[in-house]
Amino acid sequence: MSLIPQFRSLLGDAAVLTEAAAMAPYAEDWRGRYRGNAACVVLPSNTGQVAQVVRACAEARVPLVPQGGNTSLCEGAVPGKGDEGWVVLSLQRMRRIRSVDLANNSMTVDAGCVLAAVQDAAAEQGRQYGVSLGAEGSCQIGGNIATNAGGTGVLRYGNTRDNILGLEVVLPDGRIWSGLNGLRKNNTGLDLKHLFVGSEGTLGVITGATLKLHPLTTAYANAWMAVPTPQAALDVLGLFQQRVGGVLGAYEMMNALQLDIVLAHVENRRAPLAATHPWHVLVELADTGGEDALGEALQEVLRRGLEAGLILDVAVATNRAQRDAWWQVRHSVTEGNKKAGMGIATDPAVPVSAVPAFIERATAAAHAVLPGAPIIIVAHLGDGNVHFIPQASFAQWESWADPHAMASRIKHAVNQVAHELGGTFSAEHGIGQALTGDMAEFKADVELDLMRRIKQLVDPHNLFNPGRLLPSHPR
Amino acid sequence: MSLIPQFRSLLGDAAVLTEAAAMAPYAEDWRGRYRGNAACVVLPSNTGQVAQVVRACAEARVPLVPQGGNTSLCEGAVPGKGDEGWVVLSLQRMRRIRSVDLANNSMTVDAGCVLAAVQDAAAEQGRQYGVSLGAEGSCQIGGNIATNAGGTGVLRYGNTRDNILGLEVVLPDGRIWSGLNGLRKNNTGLDLKHLFVGSEGTLGVITGATLKLHPLTTAYANAWMAVPTPQAALDVLGLFQQRVGGVLGAYEMMNALQLDIVLAHVENRRAPLAATHPWHVLVELADTGGEDALGEALQEVLRRGLEAGLILDVAVATNRAQRDAWWQVRHSVTEGNKKAGMGIATDPAVPVSAVPAFIERATAAAHAVLPGAPIIIVAHLGDGNVHFIPQASFAQWESWADPHAMASRIKHAVNQVAHELGGTFSAEHGIGQALTGDMAEFKADVELDLMRRIKQLVDPHNLFNPGRLLPSHPR
Repeated sequence: MSLIPQFRSLLGDAAVLTEAAAMAPYAEDWRGRYRGNAACVVLPSNTGQVAQVVRACAEARVPLVPQGGNTSLCEGAVPGKGDEGWVVLSLQRMRRIRSVDLANNSMTVDAGCVLAAVQDAAAEQGRQYGVSLGAEGSCQIGGNIATNAGGTGVLRYGNTRDNILGLEVVLPDGRIWSGLNGLRKNNTGLDLKHLFVGSEGTLGVITGATLKLHPLTTAYANAWMAVPTPQAALDVLGLFQQRVGGVLGAYEMMNALQLDIVLAHVENRRAPLAATHPWHVLVELADTGGEDALGEALQEVLRRGLEAGLILDVAVATNRAQRDAWWQVRHSVTEGNKKAGMGIATDPAVPVSAVPAFIERATAAAHAVLPGAPIIIVAHLGDGNVHFIPQASFAQWESWADPHAMASRIKHAVNQVAHELGGTFSAEHGIGQALTGDMAEFKADVELDLMRRIKQLVDPHNLFNPGRLLPSHPR
Repeated sequence: MSLIPQFRSLLGDAAVLTEAAAMAPYAEDWRGRYRGNAACVVLPSNTGQVAQVVRACAEARVPLVPQGGNTSLCEGAVPGKGDEGWVVLSLQRMRRIRSVDLANNSMTVDAGCVLAAVQDAAAEQGRQYGVSLGAEGSCQIGGNIATNAGGTGVLRYGNTRDNILGLEVVLPDGRIWSGLNGLRKNNTGLDLKHLFVGSEGTLGVITGATLKLHPLTTAYANAWMAVPTPQAALDVLGLFQQRVGGVLGAYEMMNALQLDIVLAHVENRRAPLAATHPWHVLVELADTGGEDALGEALQEVLRRGLEAGLILDVAVATNRAQRDAWWQVRHSVTEGNKKAGMGIATDPAVPVSAVPAFIERATAAAHAVLPGAPIIIVAHLGDGNVHFIPQASFAQWESWADPHAMASRIKHAVNQVAHELGGTFSAEHGIGQALTGDMAEFKADVELDLMRRIKQLVDPHNLFNPGRLLPSHPR
C-alpha cells in the first residue's frame, strides 16, 4: 500500500503495523466471532499525528477505521473481510491525562485513555467519573464517546453523552476541531459535540475529551433482592425513586437462568441468597457523606417492599467485600454467557413502564422462531434496557445450516417487539456493522435521510468507517 | 400578502392576525427594547396545521419566525424592522399535556405549554420537572428547548437539553419528524434531537416534546449566606459538593448591589440578613424523603464554613415561607434591574474555578470603557455562569450619542475576558439577533463552518429565522 512509507516517516516504523500477526488483535473483534483485513494499523501518539494520518488518507481516498479498546459488540471498530486496502487507526498510544480542574470538577484526557484509568485518576483526586461498564478494564474513552457507552451507572450519572463537557475531533478533511472546554453551560449555536457522540467513527476521530466529574462516592448501601416478577421489580424501583431517587446508583435485574450461568461457569462466584428465586435485583444506593443514612433509607424501602409482597427475600451487604462480590456476579454475565453456550444477545430498550410487557412478548416472539430456547435476561431496569438473550447450545449452533441467519431471525423478532412498544433495538451497544439492517427497518425515513445527509456533509468521500452505522450508504 | 387567505382557510380567521395592534405583542420583545414588523401572525392548533403553514411558506419562499412565550433576551423570537414580509408562527394555542407515564417518569407535551403549567402538571402526579427560571410563568417548553434554557435548576437537573427524552419537529420542508419517545437509552445513530435543542428556530419548529421527570421534591433546606469574596463562595460550594453533592439543588450568588436593587425597587422584598455584606449566596438542598437529614447536612457544612472563615454570616430558613421569600428576592433581580437603570446585561460562563478571576478582570475591562460604572452581579455559581451587568443611569443612557454602540463595547469587553478564560459569551440566553457579532468573533472557524453547512442542509432556502444564531449567513 502506497501510504505505508508515508505513515512510517510520519509516525516512526514501530507505529505502523503491517504484518498479519501484529495486525491480528486489531482486525478481530474481542469475542473472536469476526475477523477482517486491513492494509495496516497505525498508532499515532498525539492529535497532530492523527490529523496527518487523516489528511494522507483523505488525499489518497483510503478508508479509515478508528479503533479504541476494540470492545464493540457490533463489529463497529474492526475492518471487514473485504477491507484489505483500509487503515485501522488505533488510539492506544494516546493515553495522557492532560489536566484536572478540581474546583470545576472536570478532567481533560486523551481519547485513548482506558476507562478504568480515568476512573482511577479521578478517584485519586477525590472525584468520581460516572461511567462504569463490564469492559472498563480495556475500553477507551474515545470509543465510549463514539458509541455513547451506557453501563451500570446510567441511572445516576446518565450515558457517556451526559458525562462529556467538551471534545477534540479530527474531521475527515484533517482539520482539528478544538472543542475542549469545561463549561457547564454554553448556548452559542448548535452544540456540535452531540453530533460526534454516538457517531461510531463515521464523522471523524475523537482525539480528546473534557469529562465531567462528581464528588467521590464514599458511602454505599447494597441489597440483593429476589422478586416474583419484573413488575414487582419495577414497583420496588418506584419505591426507591420516591424515597431516595437522588442517590439511587444502580438497579440491575437478572433472571434465575442468568444467575445460575454465572455461578456454574465463572470461578469464585457465590449465590447471594440461599434459596432459588425467579428474578433478582442488585440495588445500590451511593452518596457522599456517611453510610448510616443510606442504610436506614435502604432498610425502610426494603421493609415496605417486603410488607407489600413485592420482595420475596433479600440480603443487605454488611461490608464492602460483600458488595464487591455481588458486583462481580453482575459483571461476570458476559464471561458466563460466553462459556455457557451461544447467546443470541440483544440490546433493546423500552419505556421503563413497558419492561414487563416486553419480556413477556419477546419471549413468545423468540420461541416462535426457536421453540423452547432458554432465555437469559439481564437488565438495566431503571433505564428500560433489557439484554434479552435467547440461548442456543454449542451443538445446536453447529447444527444449523446458517447459524448467523438464524440468530438474525431471532434478534429481529425480539427487536420487533421492542419497536412495537415504542422502544429501540439498540440501547447501548450501537450499530456497527451488525445492526445496519435494523437501522434500515426500524428507523423513520426522515431520520435516516437527515443522518445520511449529515454524513455526506462531514465525510463527503465516505472514508470514515464506511458501511458502519448507516444502512447501504452509497460508496 | 398572498399567503394570508390560504392561512385563513387552513387555520380559520381567528388564527391569523394581520392588524398592527393585534400583532404588536408578537412583534415586540418583552423588555420593550426592540420592535419589528411582519406580514401576519399565525396561531396553529396542532402539529398538522404547523406543517401546512410551513409547507405553504416553503413553496412561497416566505421566511418564518417560530415564537414561544416571547421571553428571549436576545431578540431571538421576534421579527426585525425590515421583516414586513415574514410570518410569525406562534405556538401559544398548542398547550396540551399529551400524556404522562408515571413508571417511566416522563411526560409528553405540546411545545406551546407554559413552563409553569408543565411544572404544575408534573407536581400533580407527584413528579418534578427539573427546569426552573424567572420567566417560567410565560415562557414555553418549545422555546425552552429551542434555546436550551438554563435557570436555577441546572446544578441538580442540568440544562433543558438534559431534561428532554424526545422531540417532534416540523422540518423546513414541511416533513414532520416524530421523534417523541420516552427512552433513557437509544444508540441508533446520530441523536438528532440534540441538533434541534439550542437551534433557536433556525432548523424547524419544535411542536412537541417528551420530558424527563423526577420524583417530586418533598424536603428542602435553605440558607442565605454572606461571604467575603467569590472565592470563599466557591470554597463553600466545594464543601457542599463533597458532603451533599447529590442533593445540592441551587447555589445562587449575588453581590451587595444586586441585593440592594431588589430591596429598593421591588415591593415586599426583605433583606435576609441584618447587616450589609459584600457577597451573598442562596443555597438550597432538595430531596425526596424527610427534612431532618437535609437540615443536619446543611448545618454541618455551614459550621465548617464558619469555622474556616469562609462564611461571614448566615440565616437558615425555618419554614417554607422564609424559603419562598428568599427565592422571591432571587427571582426579582430582572424586575429590579429594569427599574433601577439601564443594565448592560451579559451572560458569560467560565469554568467554575475561573469565576473569581473572571469577576476581577471583567470589572477592570468594563471600567476601562465606562469608568466607575456600578457592576451588578448575579451568578449561577455552580454552573460558572455569571450575569455580569454594568449599569448606566437612565440619564447617562439618554446622554450617549449611540447608547447601543456603547452597550456593545462594554459587553464586548466583558465577553473578551470570558473568552480568554476558556469561557463563553452566552451561557444560557442564546444568540438571537443580538449576539451574532460575538458568534463571528469568538467561535472557531471550523465550528461556524459546520453550523452553517448544517443550516444549509436542513433549511436550504434559509427561511427559518434567517439572520438569527449564525453571523452573516447568505440570504
